[in-house]
Amino acid sequence: MFSTSALVVLTTLLTVFTPADAVWPQPQNLQTGTTPLKLSGSFDITISGSIHNAPSDLHQAVQDAKNFIKNDKLERLVVGRGSADSAAVKGAHTLSKLTLSLEKGAAVNSITSEAQKAPDLRDEAYTLTVPADGTGASITANSTLGLYRGLTTFTQLFFYHDGTTYLLNAPIQIEDSPAYPWRGLLLDTSRNFFPVGDLKRTLDAMSWNKMNQFHWHIVDSQSFPLQVPGYTELAAKGAYDSASVYSPKDVADVVSYAGARGIDVMVEVDTPGHTAVISQAHPEHIACAEATPWASFANEPPAGQLRLASPATTQFTSGLLAAVAKMFPSSLFSTGGDEINANCYTQDEETQKALNSTGQTFEQALDTFTQATHKAIRNVGKTPVVWEEMVLDHNVTLGNDTLVLVWISSDNVKAVVEKGFKLVHAASDYFYLDCGGGGWVGANPAGNSWCDPFKTWQHSYSFNPIANLTDDEAKLIMGGQHLLWAEQSGPQNLDPIVWPRAAASAELFWSNPSSGNISTAVDTALPRLHEHSYRMRQRGVNTINLQPEWCALRPGACDLTA
Amino acid sequence: MFSTSALVVLTTLLTVFTPADAVWPQPQNLQTGTTPLKLSGSFDITISGSIHNAPSDLHQAVQDAKNFIKNDKLERLVVGRGSADSAAVKGAHTLSKLTLSLEKGAAVNSITSEAQKAPDLRDEAYTLTVPADGTGASITANSTLGLYRGLTTFTQLFFYHDGTTYLLNAPIQIEDSPAYPWRGLLLDTSRNFFPVGDLKRTLDAMSWNKMNQFHWHIVDSQSFPLQVPGYTELAAKGAYDSASVYSPKDVADVVSYAGARGIDVMVEVDTPGHTAVISQAHPEHIACAEATPWASFANEPPAGQLRLASPATTQFTSGLLAAVAKMFPSSLFSTGGDEINANCYTQDEETQKALNSTGQTFEQALDTFTQATHKAIRNVGKTPVVWEEMVLDHNVTLGNDTLVLVWISSDNVKAVVEKGFKLVHAASDYFYLDCGGGGWVGANPAGNSWCDPFKTWQHSYSFNPIANLTDDEAKLIMGGQHLLWAEQSGPQNLDPIVWPRAAASAELFWSNPSSGNISTAVDTALPRLHEHSYRMRQRGVNTINLQPEWCALRPGACDLTA
Repeated sequence: MFSTSALVVLTTLLTVFTPADAVWPQPQNLQTGTTPLKLSGSFDITISGSIHNAPSDLHQAVQDAKNFIKNDKLERLVVGRGSADSAAVKGAHTLSKLTLSLEKGAAVNSITSEAQKAPDLRDEAYTLTVPADGTGASITANSTLGLYRGLTTFTQLFFYHDGTTYLLNAPIQIEDSPAYPWRGLLLDTSRNFFPVGDLKRTLDAMSWNKMNQFHWHIVDSQSFPLQVPGYTELAAKGAYDSASVYSPKDVADVVSYAGARGIDVMVEVDTPGHTAVISQAHPEHIACAEATPWASFANEPPAGQLRLASPATTQFTSGLLAAVAKMFPSSLFSTGGDEINANCYTQDEETQKALNSTGQTFEQALDTFTQATHKAIRNVGKTPVVWEEMVLDHNVTLGNDTLVLVWISSDNVKAVVEKGFKLVHAASDYFYLDCGGGGWVGANPAGNSWCDPFKTWQHSYSFNPIANLTDDEAKLIMGGQHLLWAEQSGPQNLDPIVWPRAAASAELFWSNPSSGNISTAVDTALPRLHEHSYRMRQRGVNTINLQPEWCALRPGACDLTA
Repeated sequence: MFSTSALVVLTTLLTVFTPADAVWPQPQNLQTGTTPLKLSGSFDITISGSIHNAPSDLHQAVQDAKNFIKNDKLERLVVGRGSADSAAVKGAHTLSKLTLSLEKGAAVNSITSEAQKAPDLRDEAYTLTVPADGTGASITANSTLGLYRGLTTFTQLFFYHDGTTYLLNAPIQIEDSPAYPWRGLLLDTSRNFFPVGDLKRTLDAMSWNKMNQFHWHIVDSQSFPLQVPGYTELAAKGAYDSASVYSPKDVADVVSYAGARGIDVMVEVDTPGHTAVISQAHPEHIACAEATPWASFANEPPAGQLRLASPATTQFTSGLLAAVAKMFPSSLFSTGGDEINANCYTQDEETQKALNSTGQTFEQALDTFTQATHKAIRNVGKTPVVWEEMVLDHNVTLGNDTLVLVWISSDNVKAVVEKGFKLVHAASDYFYLDCGGGGWVGANPAGNSWCDPFKTWQHSYSFNPIANLTDDEAKLIMGGQHLLWAEQSGPQNLDPIVWPRAAASAELFWSNPSSGNISTAVDTALPRLHEHSYRMRQRGVNTINLQPEWCALRPGACDLTA
């Protein structure tokens, strides 16, 4: 029943999808045939000689792609698995070569440096061709980053059975590029700590989804796991323990690992709220530090915010942010700005004294503070990124290039773009991975989560990035991301809580499937998401099952309407 | 703030709990002091000479307990972790010996054989004493199963720091026994398959929670992973693949592993519904096999039910159930009986023909079928267990010793016990671990789960097992269990979806905490559950974080009221 329900109309092509079309996210333009090809035992990937001095991360990407093709060993998800293809593959032509080429005149930069450009400047487009006769396949692009995306697609064309690696649908012609320049994932490493190995595995998984922005919410009120040169006292006193720390070397390692996978790492040091832990080393800079009852001073325990009206604190914060910014090559830096608690400052004698001495209102002081911290990060070459409250709730002077993250509700998107700011979708009602798992504050027998219910992959996938926006407003949408706030997470449930759910936004913001009928889009995505999820699992990420295997093997058979 | 809020009144004793009281489930009677004791380097556990021919599983349990005490290395969850105890522990007396003894005249049976007795006959009581002067600790019981429970408690008394294993609260006097004889966990291995290693790890975790009943929902409509002697065609054609099979040897291995840990394994072969997969090998026995649209014939795909009006099918089923029953030493066998779809039988020509030929109504045929299958399992010495519909929705003759599992709603409990049946709590509104994770049927953009929301540990913990029951009705309550239906689960998320949540019902049905104020019970349980969860993690189970570590280190500080 899948063969008839899976007729998908793409924007530019009419294409029949078969279960073999397991590329995720779906390419923007894809033409496939019905000819099987076996991978030759001597299969190799060659970087065209016209790419002089190919960067080392491109060489490594080629090696990684070869390893994936060799080791994935993914049996196709049909009844009988790979054996269902044996007859078709027997006697098929072999594919022995893939060649990577850059368009004439394209600059030869590393994948890393291309990925670390500003979102608008990243060129991720590529063309991929696999002829039906087994003569060489090719990927061409305008950048090494585009070649990397093409390689990622190429590895997803293959299935395996009984010693043979094959694809089913040659000739293949793909012209692909992302609908939006930002497909991200936020991970909070403060509420609970994640070792570097977990971050790397997450970056691997992101790269297989062509996600390009890791939003590292690295510190918060609960712990300060980042060793910052010149500010090492913050981690020394604020990390959970000496093992739960990211050294500058760890950061460089993560950033480099991400870059080689086409991912930029944007760090966030949330200010002026979400900073209680700074009081461990610098009590002089924090208002209402661990004040009780916490609910009067913060949205979650412990309470504590930077004394933003204090010149000394403003200077300290500016210095800290600049020092952190220098650890990350990204063009972006998030200064946060969410959930500022007014009562904390009202009750803080020092803050009131400072406001009185200058005659500033709280909002004026926040503006002064924000201008200072943004100036500090601009001085080291970064564009500021902020949470929506900085635009919607406060009177803060922001550069018009500032990126705004909407988190409270997708209902707030229009108000932000109406003010002319570029926007990244990160709304709790669609993209929060932690919602629906129960509440975590103590002495709460009901145990509900503030952002119930659980956000299913289907719900995220059905989000419309430009709902209610004018054409001009829609141009301000940079893309979007899933987010994992880690109050109830850790290495123990990282993979199951993130994957394959986050793949939904990866495809949403690359392929823009919701431009059509949502019910159909979710329906046709499911068998592809199964294949993708099983492939990710073959590569070592603990993606969860979306259905009984009986359903995964029978595309469409478990549909409500089947 | 914890020290004042943690005054807990137990049924028989007034006890001050400190964070060191990490025993889970909470002992029924516990007296502790404030004297620290260090574990001697030569610490040993001795089985009293009065226990002649101690069974091998008791010897193994002693070895396992020694290994846990040595390897747990759990630093106490306070700010500074174990170093906070260094001063107190320095110069403490050492504890060098624990002796296990049976009460005079007690039978010396294996833990396994004690665990496999009927629930009413299991004696799990024990007494544990740790004197403050470091002279020998002791556990006494009426059975090896009681000794095993005591050993489990003993291993949870210890913390670790910097090479020293210690406890803080000698003298300790514990008189303990379970409030209910059934503390269980159901795992569905049909929707998705779980290798034996995952089952064993789950049994380990259950044993640390003093859970004693593994309810193995081993087959269902989606797959038949059980190799049954005489019926091997069912797994040969109905397992997902040849690796996703439990051989008789695997079953014996799981049963033996469970028994040595004080756990009985009750197998379930759900009938007459939930049997579509039998059609792979025996189409003649299944009505509406894989009929479409599935929603007209079953609650989930694929449709298919045993042709219960057919004498041949009844005979086949009786034979199959007896053969499966013989693989399990338990006194219990579940024949299921949930979600029988009437339309499937109405539309099935064979069933209608059979009913017409005998003049039976459907309900009469169901009665005949159930009497036959129950007779078959009684013939091999088992007591039948059924789901609630067999009592509440159908007119089936059941032996009055039949155990009934309530799953649809806890509102149905009273109706079942009013009919005089023994009952096990398994209600979806309190104990379903799969709820709230999103729906899994395809083409469903909303993606809601039928049993939303997620059942938090707090919610499960606040369940009252005897709500609205008379004293006589309450005597029919055997206990309860958490349940994992595996439509969206597999080895990838087994630990995170089950633990530490299932610990809530383990303590609920052992310690009966809900006899007091629920808000207080949840509040005082949380720090103990943290310690327990972190300890389980040290032993290799991926329990999830319930709170930011900041909260875990500061009992009470993240309470709503703190």
